[in-house]
Amino acid sequence: MSFAGLWDSLLPLGRDGSTGGYRRYSWTAADEECRAWFTSAAADRGLRTHSDRNGNLWAWWDPPRLSTDSGPTDSGPTGSRATGSGLAGSGVSSGSTVSSQGGGGAIVTGSHLDSVPDGGAFDGPLGVVSGFAAIDLLRERGIAPVRPIAVAAFTEEEGARFGVACLGSRLLTGAITPEAARRLRDGDGVTLAEAMAAAGHDPGGLGPDEELLSSIGAYVELHVEQGRALAELDSAIGIAEGIWPHGRWRLDFTGQADHAGTAALADRRDPMIPYAATVLAARQAAAGHQTLATLGKVTARPGGANAVCASVTGWLDARAPDEAGLRGTVEEILTAARQAAAAHGVSLDTRQESITPLVTFDSRLSGTLAASLAARGIAAPVLPTGAGHDAGVLSAWLPAAMLFVRNPSGVSHAPAEQADEADCAAGVDALAAVLQDLAGQ
Amino acid sequence: MSFAGLWDSLLPLGRDGSTGGYRRYSWTAADEECRAWFTSAAADRGLRTHSDRNGNLWAWWDPPRLSTDSGPTDSGPTGSRATGSGLAGSGVSSGSTVSSQGGGGAIVTGSHLDSVPDGGAFDGPLGVVSGFAAIDLLRERGIAPVRPIAVAAFTEEEGARFGVACLGSRLLTGAITPEAARRLRDGDGVTLAEAMAAAGHDPGGLGPDEELLSSIGAYVELHVEQGRALAELDSAIGIAEGIWPHGRWRLDFTGQADHAGTAALADRRDPMIPYAATVLAARQAAAGHQTLATLGKVTARPGGANAVCASVTGWLDARAPDEAGLRGTVEEILTAARQAAAAHGVSLDTRQESITPLVTFDSRLSGTLAASLAARGIAAPVLPTGAGHDAGVLSAWLPAAMLFVRNPSGVSHAPAEQADEADCAAGVDALAAVLQDLAGQ
Repeated sequence: MSFAGLWDSLLPLGRDGSTGGYRRYSWTAADEECRAWFTSAAADRGLRTHSDRNGNLWAWWDPPRLSTDSGPTDSGPTGSRATGSGLAGSGVSSGSTVSSQGGGGAIVTGSHLDSVPDGGAFDGPLGVVSGFAAIDLLRERGIAPVRPIAVAAFTEEEGARFGVACLGSRLLTGAITPEAARRLRDGDGVTLAEAMAAAGHDPGGLGPDEELLSSIGAYVELHVEQGRALAELDSAIGIAEGIWPHGRWRLDFTGQADHAGTAALADRRDPMIPYAATVLAARQAAAGHQTLATLGKVTARPGGANAVCASVTGWLDARAPDEAGLRGTVEEILTAARQAAAAHGVSLDTRQESITPLVTFDSRLSGTLAASLAARGIAAPVLPTGAGHDAGVLSAWLPAAMLFVRNPSGVSHAPAEQADEADCAAGVDALAAVLQDLAGQ
Repeated sequence: MSFAGLWDSLLPLGRDGSTGGYRRYSWTAADEECRAWFTSAAADRGLRTHSDRNGNLWAWWDPPRLSTDSGPTDSGPTGSRATGSGLAGSGVSSGSTVSSQGGGGAIVTGSHLDSVPDGGAFDGPLGVVSGFAAIDLLRERGIAPVRPIAVAAFTEEEGARFGVACLGSRLLTGAITPEAARRLRDGDGVTLAEAMAAAGHDPGGLGPDEELLSSIGAYVELHVEQGRALAELDSAIGIAEGIWPHGRWRLDFTGQADHAGTAALADRRDPMIPYAATVLAARQAAAGHQTLATLGKVTARPGGANAVCASVTGWLDARAPDEAGLRGTVEEILTAARQAAAAHGVSLDTRQESITPLVTFDSRLSGTLAASLAARGIAAPVLPTGAGHDAGVLSAWLPAAMLFVRNPSGVSHAPAEQADEADCAAGVDALAAVLQDLAGQ
């Protein structure tokens, strides 16, 4: 099946009819459909699939057996381990480097299938579909890997249901404890443990998987660009330099519910006022620090139109090129929030829901990517990004890198997110080139 | 059954276990329980009950048959009509006045049983319970009315489900057309017509009821005070002077959804920013005009914590002592909203959802109330209020007045709403005195 066929078969799943956006939240019916799509796409290609203990999906293309390799290659997720050391003299210098860095030999590509509320079609799925399409392309060209190649789809990358972004890769690497993860609740109060169990997946198995991790030599994630840098540079493909440090803070403003028609202004403890002041302070702080700060989610309780509300909860997303900038931005915003709350007799409780430090992708691996592309005449500028990715989480454990595909709209996390067909094809070409050079022949 | 017994039997209905607030929304299961409670309380007192075509509940205490009155008094809601003219020489001057103003002779008291989200126990129910308790008191004292007395419970006074406050009294008086009312939708998209039909009530009968209206000589609503004026004046009971003009506006800010980590500030069209600016402008405008303005309900869509939202909808509630003040306040807020929206590339759609002009209660009826209370040594200061009431809607059709009962917390539309037991008893005493004088003996 071609890229277009694969893409078209995924397109209708979890799409909202009225907004045209995607609502692929983890462990829901839409998620189940996406998982079935993944398994089917892998089966069509004769790839070994498994869902790991954290619910991340893997599709393995095992290399043909070497005469020196007497072990089975088709049993279990880590059937690839036996091949790692066998590659030391494969002559692919980047591969050797990767092998010595990452411990294992497998080359993994992929991304995620879940979405933000009313997200676009490309953020996540483009990397998974391109992974399968790149394998198709390598096979069409008669190329067989010496190292195993896998396509992965990580669970709950967006954190849209349980509030922690990159949850699947964080669990895999131990960046979040299984106990903390199991207790996470969605907007309806359902815990991750309950949601997984309801979807037929044992939450008791959650946790780091060093055996699986150690089998991986490198992770290369292809992703739609979430800005307009490539469009402005007139390039279809880019290579990620790193990921800005970023985090999410929950701000609970608690005041006193009251009657909108009778409570005097001076008597009010209206939490909406300091919330609003915080929104404006966030914009000002981000502009001043040349960073990003966003409040895109808010709830007011009880939410009667003729009542001063009792509480307002807002979520602050902040990102910066460096950690000092992030800290400065968030401190300025939280200080303004506290001052506004105090001025209105409102209490403020702030909680850091997640924080991701600066990620600088492995320069040797990124250099290999650049060399692979350059050797085929593909220009690929190096770009920083403010968006978090599983590649960023994994980069603390193994060499990771990213390829970006041009997004002419620059918009992401919304239905207007876009990538042209020709650029998607260029992405598959670039990824195939990288996989070929990393997995050896 | 005493006031306390009646009160206690109503208290558990529609109460939320976690917040302690009430969620008595019209045509829901909680509403059904409140209606059954009303019917049962009326039946316990041998009062004729009926639900009118708009779903408002009525419990009639018919006077003993006069020798000159040969018609039946216990059939139909307007069995009271025959008594109107028979009272001209009753010697109750205020009663005569009322009769000539209102056309009919019945004296109606009551309020409503529905609530705002997480509302208090007193707003509405205190008037209904006090109405029944006042009838008990009059009977204990051996007083029989010459005119019919009714206790009414109006439907959807808060507008919490369908967005239009005082919906039951508006329909009764024709202040809203039945067609417009039937099309009103709740937050889940259910129309009023559908909700009524599901509750077993024919929405085809909605509309003004001049026959019922013309049978009423006066309406006196007892209500918990929704501020602290009585507490500061050290009075248990007050008389309403009037109701501030007030209205509700819906503001839809539409921008462009985007990724919180990649969309540059300059490229954003973030609707949260002008929404926040509007909240602060509302506070400032209200302070400047010495009026009230509140934004207590907001929704952000799609509402992802890591995305610039696509749209924000806020509801503005504004009230003022006079219509010029209301107009000035709202114009200032909407101008600020438009400017902030334009500055951020966000479109703004504003819609007036409801407007209620200044209500000055009937001065002769209020004078009668004051005289009745003064004659019994009850001090009752005259107060304005910013809260809408069915009495305000009805006042356009017939003489209406209100009694307030002290609220030591000053809080309303919230669980902290309060009235002391002794003040509730004083309210029943005051209401009984007023009913006795108006309905004659």
